[in-house]
Amino acid sequence: MKKSLGPRTLAYPTPVWVVGSYDKEGQPNIMTIAWGGICCSQPPCVTVSLRKATYSYGNIMERKAYTVSIPSVRHLREADYAGIYSGRNEDKFAATGLTAVRSALVDAPYVQEFPMVIECRLLQALDLGLHTLFIGEIMDIKADEALLGADGMPDIAGLAPFVFIPTEHAYYQVGEMVGKAFEAGRKEG
Amino acid sequence: MKKSLGPRTLAYPTPVWVVGSYDKEGQPNIMTIAWGGICCSQPPCVTVSLRKATYSYGNIMERKAYTVSIPSVRHLREADYAGIYSGRNEDKFAATGLTAVRSALVDAPYVQEFPMVIECRLLQALDLGLHTLFIGEIMDIKADEALLGADGMPDIAGLAPFVFIPTEHAYYQVGEMVGKAFEAGRKEG
Repeated sequence: MKKSLGPRTLAYPTPVWVVGSYDKEGQPNIMTIAWGGICCSQPPCVTVSLRKATYSYGNIMERKAYTVSIPSVRHLREADYAGIYSGRNEDKFAATGLTAVRSALVDAPYVQEFPMVIECRLLQALDLGLHTLFIGEIMDIKADEALLGADGMPDIAGLAPFVFIPTEHAYYQVGEMVGKAFEAGRKEG
Repeated sequence: MKKSLGPRTLAYPTPVWVVGSYDKEGQPNIMTIAWGGICCSQPPCVTVSLRKATYSYGNIMERKAYTVSIPSVRHLREADYAGIYSGRNEDKFAATGLTAVRSALVDAPYVQEFPMVIECRLLQALDLGLHTLFIGEIMDIKADEALLGADGMPDIAGLAPFVFIPTEHAYYQVGEMVGKAFEAGRKEG
C-alpha cells in the first residue's frame, strides 16, 4: 500500500556536483548542487539547476560556461561547505584550500583535487520557477591519471563517489557493485 | 595530473529510474533510464531524457504524462530488463511479473512493487539531438507505507537504492551514510 507524500523533490539518488564558474572580475567560484543529470548522449550534454539568487547563476549567464567537478568522499566536507555559503561573501577556494584550474576549453574553472571534472559550454538556460535549468554541452571530461585502469577508465574505488538522498538530507557512499547494466536483465537462451 | 577522456557522458552517479507511460491503446509500458534528475524545487520538477526511437517517447508525447518508479536492488533484474527491450515488441509488465497501477493524477501507470514512485505531467519536451529532454511537474510522490518512519519519510534500508555508473556500465548499491548535508561543511564556532 502506497502513501502520498505530496508534490515534493524527493527523487533519489541525486548527484553531489560542484559547479565552477568565474565572476565578472575573473574570481573563481564553486557551488554544490544536487539538481542535475546527464540529458543527451549526442551531443553529450549535462544539466545543472541553480536558483536565480545564487552568485553562480549570474556568472554562468555572463560567461556562458560552467564546469562540474565530482568530489570523492574524501572531499565531502569541502563539497558540503560549497553548498552552504555564497561566493558573494566568501572566496570558497581560499576557505577550503581547493585549487582552481582554468579550463582550456571553456570560460570556467574546475577543482584540481577532485578526481573527475566535466567542462561545459552553455547551450540553453530555461527558467522553470525557483530554479533555472542550465543545459551544457560536454566539451571534455578529465580524470586523474593515477586512477585510470587498463581500459582507460577511472577506477571506482579511487573515485569513491557519494550521493545525496533528499528524503534524509544526507550523503551516502556508493558501495558494492550489484550487477552489470544491459546484462543482468537479459533473457536467457 | 588530469587526462582528457573526450566529450562523453561519463558523469556519475546517475539514477536508475523506470519511466511508465501508456501507448495509444492504453497498454502500459516501462523503460529504464539513467539520463535524468531533479531540475526545480518550486514547482517541483524532474527531467528524464529519451531517444526519439523509443516506444515510450511517442507515448509521453501523446499522453503528456509519465511516472518514475524507483527500483530497489531487489528489482535490479527487472529494471535492467526494462532498459534492454522495447515495448514495441514486448509486454514488459507481463514479462517481468510487475504490476501496472493507473495513476489517479496523471495519464500514466506506475510500478506497484517498487518502493517509491513519482507522478508527472509533461511541461516541456526539448529536442537536444539524440535525446529529448522531458521536463515533468511532480504532481505527487508515493512511497510504500510499510517503509515510512516516525518522520513520515521512507527508510533508506527499505528503499535499498542503487545507481548506474557510466564509466563501468555497472550498478552499485548505495552504502553507508557518510555525512549530513548542510551540516558537514559548516564553519565552526
